[in-house]
Amino acid sequence: MSFTHVVMFKWKDESFDAQAVAEALQSAVAAIDGVQSYVCGPDVNLSPGSFDFAVVGTFDDRDSFLTYRDNPEHQRIIKEMINPHLESRSVAQLES
Amino acid sequence: MSFTHVVMFKWKDESFDAQAVAEALQSAVAAIDGVQSYVCGPDVNLSPGSFDFAVVGTFDDRDSFLTYRDNPEHQRIIKEMINPHLESRSVAQLES
Repeated sequence: MSFTHVVMFKWKDESFDAQAVAEALQSAVAAIDGVQSYVCGPDVNLSPGSFDFAVVGTFDDRDSFLTYRDNPEHQRIIKEMINPHLESRSVAQLES
Repeated sequence: MSFTHVVMFKWKDESFDAQAVAEALQSAVAAIDGVQSYVCGPDVNLSPGSFDFAVVGTFDDRDSFLTYRDNPEHQRIIKEMINPHLESRSVAQLES
């Protein structure tokens, strides 16, 4: 049973270049155990009303996800790089 | 380069049992080419304010996703099984 975490962001300013966010998240995740796959980046503007950025992480289990969620560098990225630009956020987690 | 599609639903009635939606989506996807992975189901209620249901599909490329998106059975499931229960929807797609 894997654990899939999905979060999407709408930025206050749609033109915000979130490449640095994607890179910071990817390098933070590289140092965390239990991550089966991790994809993040800007939306491709294909679907009307789509969000601006998405993260999809698949973890070995819930505990591996919690380790990621509470990781200090991950929390720093949220606080310093995401939240200041954030208009809205949608999140869900699945056991799969 | 894969193509990741993510969509989340909030149901009008939080207690709506979406297991039939998950099963219908899974069987529709089984008959579609270019699907690398496909996970869908109810949220586990771990994060405050989380959505109720999520779908994460990874496709060979954008065209494979469009084939899935426009697939008649997929469209039927949206129209008959999802939309009648839908309060809100968040969507994003990534090229990864």
